[in-house]
Amino acid sequence: MTTTKQVKSDITIAQEAELHPILDIASSIGLAEDEVELYGRFKGKITFDAIEKRKGATEGKVILVTSINPTPAGEGKSTVTVGLGDALTRLGKQSIIAMREPSLGPTMGIKGGAAGGGYAQVVPMEDINLHFTGDIHAITSANNALAALLDNHIHQGNELGIDPRRIVWKRALDMNDRALRHTVIGLGGPVQGVPREEGFDITVASEIMAVLCLSNSLDELKDRLAGMVIAYGYDRKPVYVRDLGVEGALTLLLKDALKPNLVQTIEHTPALVHGGPFANIAHGCNSVMATRTAMKLGDYVVTESGFGADLGAEKFLNIKSRAAGIAPSAVVLVATIRALKMHGGVNKMELATENTKALEAGLANLEKHMETLEAFEVPYVVAINRFITDSETEITLLKKWCEDRGVSVALTDVWANGGEGGLELAEKVLSEIETNKKVLKPIYELTDSISEKIEKIAMTVYGAEGVDFSPKAFKQIEQFESEGWGGLPVCMAKTQYSLSDDPVKLGRPSGFRITIRELKPKIGAGFIVALTGDVMTMPGLPKSPAANQMDVASDGRAIGLF
Amino acid sequence: MTTTKQVKSDITIAQEAELHPILDIASSIGLAEDEVELYGRFKGKITFDAIEKRKGATEGKVILVTSINPTPAGEGKSTVTVGLGDALTRLGKQSIIAMREPSLGPTMGIKGGAAGGGYAQVVPMEDINLHFTGDIHAITSANNALAALLDNHIHQGNELGIDPRRIVWKRALDMNDRALRHTVIGLGGPVQGVPREEGFDITVASEIMAVLCLSNSLDELKDRLAGMVIAYGYDRKPVYVRDLGVEGALTLLLKDALKPNLVQTIEHTPALVHGGPFANIAHGCNSVMATRTAMKLGDYVVTESGFGADLGAEKFLNIKSRAAGIAPSAVVLVATIRALKMHGGVNKMELATENTKALEAGLANLEKHMETLEAFEVPYVVAINRFITDSETEITLLKKWCEDRGVSVALTDVWANGGEGGLELAEKVLSEIETNKKVLKPIYELTDSISEKIEKIAMTVYGAEGVDFSPKAFKQIEQFESEGWGGLPVCMAKTQYSLSDDPVKLGRPSGFRITIRELKPKIGAGFIVALTGDVMTMPGLPKSPAANQMDVASDGRAIGLF
Repeated sequence: MTTTKQVKSDITIAQEAELHPILDIASSIGLAEDEVELYGRFKGKITFDAIEKRKGATEGKVILVTSINPTPAGEGKSTVTVGLGDALTRLGKQSIIAMREPSLGPTMGIKGGAAGGGYAQVVPMEDINLHFTGDIHAITSANNALAALLDNHIHQGNELGIDPRRIVWKRALDMNDRALRHTVIGLGGPVQGVPREEGFDITVASEIMAVLCLSNSLDELKDRLAGMVIAYGYDRKPVYVRDLGVEGALTLLLKDALKPNLVQTIEHTPALVHGGPFANIAHGCNSVMATRTAMKLGDYVVTESGFGADLGAEKFLNIKSRAAGIAPSAVVLVATIRALKMHGGVNKMELATENTKALEAGLANLEKHMETLEAFEVPYVVAINRFITDSETEITLLKKWCEDRGVSVALTDVWANGGEGGLELAEKVLSEIETNKKVLKPIYELTDSISEKIEKIAMTVYGAEGVDFSPKAFKQIEQFESEGWGGLPVCMAKTQYSLSDDPVKLGRPSGFRITIRELKPKIGAGFIVALTGDVMTMPGLPKSPAANQMDVASDGRAIGLF
Repeated sequence: MTTTKQVKSDITIAQEAELHPILDIASSIGLAEDEVELYGRFKGKITFDAIEKRKGATEGKVILVTSINPTPAGEGKSTVTVGLGDALTRLGKQSIIAMREPSLGPTMGIKGGAAGGGYAQVVPMEDINLHFTGDIHAITSANNALAALLDNHIHQGNELGIDPRRIVWKRALDMNDRALRHTVIGLGGPVQGVPREEGFDITVASEIMAVLCLSNSLDELKDRLAGMVIAYGYDRKPVYVRDLGVEGALTLLLKDALKPNLVQTIEHTPALVHGGPFANIAHGCNSVMATRTAMKLGDYVVTESGFGADLGAEKFLNIKSRAAGIAPSAVVLVATIRALKMHGGVNKMELATENTKALEAGLANLEKHMETLEAFEVPYVVAINRFITDSETEITLLKKWCEDRGVSVALTDVWANGGEGGLELAEKVLSEIETNKKVLKPIYELTDSISEKIEKIAMTVYGAEGVDFSPKAFKQIEQFESEGWGGLPVCMAKTQYSLSDDPVKLGRPSGFRITIRELKPKIGAGFIVALTGDVMTMPGLPKSPAANQMDVASDGRAIGLF
C-alpha cells in the first residue's frame, strides 16, 4: 500500500494543481452564478440571498473530525478532513468540506496553516494562507474601531463613566508580535488621549472572531456585537458595546466577512473555508454560517474543531452544537502511530523506530478521547493517519486494539494519495452513520451553575479528580451569576498538549486536579472563558521566522510560502 | 442653468445607480475577461499579464486635477475629477479616471472619502469606502509584519546592533486612533520583548503606501521595500529592510495590492481607484501602476493629487512625474466661489451671502496657484465648481477675472448634473491640450542640494521670502547628503490650509518665511520629507464619530455610511 512518490512540498503540489473555475464548483452544488461573489477566478463568497433562499432546504449530515492530544509529531487533522471529503466525493456522495481559515500571524512565524497538506489540500493555498477574502482583516478593523471609539469616548468626556483601569477590550493585529502583549497607550499629553495599560491580541483571539463564527445571520451578528462586555464603570457595572451605540458600524465593517467563502480541494470537492477562532480563548470551530450553508448544499459535511477532542470536540459539542442546533452524525477521531508513541514516552527523535511497547502505552490517550465521545453519545470512527515510518506491526496492533473494543477503525493515507487514501475511512464513516443512531447528549446542562459545568468537563472529559477555583475565580463566578450570565456555556482555556492543565503530562494522566485561575465573560460570543493557566493570546515569532524564506516572483507567483 | 432636484445624499445616489458588470466596463477599454480578477460583480483588479502585454501600447494624455488651498467650505476636487471624466466620455473620448482609494479611518470619523459626490461618484461607493479590494489591509499587514520582525530581531539577540531608541519604523492601523500616537511597548518582562517607545501611524501614512504608489512593477516594489530605512544602529548607521532580509515576505504580502482596481462612475466611465498616500508625509497621488495602466487603455486619463496645488500638484510634478516618467498634458485648477470668499476673509457661516469684495480679495490665492502652474510650464484651465449659493454676479466676476488674464476658465456643475455639468470644462481642457504645447519643467533639479530644493519650492510655489532650517534639520541635511541621499526629491509636509506654514494665513500671505523643523528619510519611497511643523500622522476621532450613525440592514445594505 505504501507508494513511492517523490515527496513534494505542499506549495509545489498546490501550485501544480489544476483548479476548476469556482463558478463550476458552485454549480456542482446547485449555486447559480449570481449566488456567488467572485474574488478572482478561484474564490467566492456565497451571498446572503442564496442562503436565505435555502432556509427550508433539507440538511445534509455533519461529520466532525477531531484528534488525540496534539504532539510535535503531528496528527494531520486538517489533512484527514480534506481527504475524507475527497473520499466521499469519490464514493459518489455530494460532499462539502467546512474548515477554518488560517491566520496570517503564524504563517509569518512558523510553518503551519490550516489548509491541509500533500494531496489533501484546499486551494488556492497561497491566497487562503495570505489575505484570502479579507475576513480576518475586517475583524481586525472592527476590533480596533471599537477600541478607538472606546478610548475616544473616554477622551471626549467619558459620559458612561468608564474606568480606564478596568477596560477588558483589547486591540488586535493578525500578526505574531510579542512586543505588543503589554503596552501603555495614550501618552504624550492631554490632546493624545488618556494614558492607560493596553495589550494586543492576535485577531483570531478577538471575541469578534468568535461572535462572527457563532452568528446565524447579520441581525444575530449585530445583537451579539451589541452584547459584548468591553469595560467596567467606576460603579463596577459592565459596559457593553450597546452602551457606546456602535454595533451598527461594527456590523457594517463585518457584513462581507460573514458570508461563507467557497474554494475547492485539489480534487475539486467544494470547501467552505470560513472563520477561525482560537481554540483556547474561544471555541476553535469554523463558522456556523458556513457549516449550516454546507448542510443545505451537500449530503455530507466534513468539518473539524481545533486541538484534541478534550478541547475542540468538547467545545463543538457543548457550544457550537447548541448555538447552531447542529449535531454531528459521526465523529472521526484522528490518531497517528507517531503521536501515540510520543504519548507513550518516546522522544521526538526516535519516532521512526518501531516501538510497540510505547505505542501500547500511548493508547491510553486515545482511549480517554474514545470514552469522551461515548459520554457525548456520538457515533465515531478512529482514523489512523499513516506516516511513512509506521511499521505494519504497529498498524496491525492499533487496528486490532480498536477492533477488540468494538470500535470502527480505518487506515488513511490521504497526504500521499488524496481522496483515494481516505476511501476506507469514508466507507466506515458512512456505515457508522447508517447503523449507529445515537443522538448527541451534551456533557452539561445550561441550567447547571458555572462551577458545575466546569467540574463536569474536567471530570468527564479530562479525567480530573476535581476542580480548584482560585479566590478570584470564585468571586467572579458569584459576580457573573448575579449579572445573569450563569446560563451560558463554558469555554475552557487549557493547554492542548495534555488532558490535564500541565502540558508535560502526556498519555492519560490520572490523580490530577484542574485549577481555574480566572474567568473572562465573552457575553457577545455567548460563553464564559475559564482559564486554567497562562493563555497566550498573542504569539511571538521564532528566531528564524518563516518570513525570512518568503519571496514572490516577477509574475506574482508565491515562493517559500510553506 | 441651476436645476431644482431634490437634494439626495451621496449614498442614496450611489445605491440608486445602476451599475454595469465590471467585465463590461473592462471590455469597453479592451480588457479581456481573463485580464480582470473579479472582486464581486462590480470591482476587479487588472492582472500583471494584462499590464505586461500592453507595455508597448500608445499612451493616452494625462489631465491632472488640483485646487486652491482647501477650506472648510469645500472645493470638490474629486467630484470634478469624476465629472470631467464623465464629460469626456460624453464627448466620445475614451476616458479613464485614476483616483486614490479612501482610508477607512476618516470614514469612521467624519464624513469624507475620496469617491466624488452627488452625480459625479465612483461606485460601488460603500465597498470603495469600506474594505474595497483589501489593498490598505495588505499594507497594514506588511507594515506591521516588518515591525514585528524588527522587534523580534532585537529580542532574539540583535545581531544587527539596532539601537531600540533609534527605531524610525512605526506600526500602523487604518483607523483614527489618537491613543496610539505615543505608546510604550515590550513591557512585561524578558519574554515579552524589549521595552521601547513606539507610535502608530494611520496606514495611509506608512512609507509602504508611498512605495506601492511609486512602483512600476513587482520587482521595483521589492527593491524599494528593501531600501526603506527602519532604524539606526548603535553605530548611528542606517538599518535597511534589506539588512533584515524580509523584503521578499513584504512583497508577497503586497502582490495583489499592487494590481490596479477597476470600478466605474455612476455614468459608467471606467475608473482605476488605487493607492492613497497621505498628502503631507507622502506625495498624495494615486498609484503609478494605475495611472500608467489607464494611459495604456484610454485616450484621456483624469487624475488628481491631494490638497491644493502648493502640495499635491507640486508633488505630482516634481516627484510622481519623475518616478513614472509621466507629464500631464493639462492641469485643471479647481476653485469655488465659497472657498475664494473664505480666502477673502468671510467666515464660514456667511458664505451664502453674495460678497464680491471678499471674492476679489480671495482671488489672490487662486492667482498664486496659477503662477505656480505657469512656473511648471504646464497648460491649465480653471474650473469653477458651482454651488447652489453662488450668485450670477460672483460667477461672472470670477470668469471675467480669468479671461482678463488670458486664462481658460469653465463653470462646472457635476455634483448636480454628472458629466453633463462638466462638458464646458471638458471642451476647454481638450482645446488647451490641442493648442498649448508647453512641456513640464520641474521646479528644481535632482542635482540641487536638499536645501536648494526646499528653497525653490518655498519661494516659487509658496511665495515665501526664504527658508529657516532648525539646527536639527541643518545637521540632518549634512548627514543625509553624506549617506548619498542628496539626489532624492523633497516631499514637503506643510499645512494644506495656507500657502505659508501657518494654517490661519489664508488668501495669499506675503513676507513670510518657511521653517524646516526636521527631515525624515523615506529612502524606499525615494524622497526626503521636510517637516515645517507638527504633522499629524495619526488622526483622532471627533466627539460624535460618523460610526455612531452607521448601520447595516438585514440584507447587507449599508446605512448611514455618508
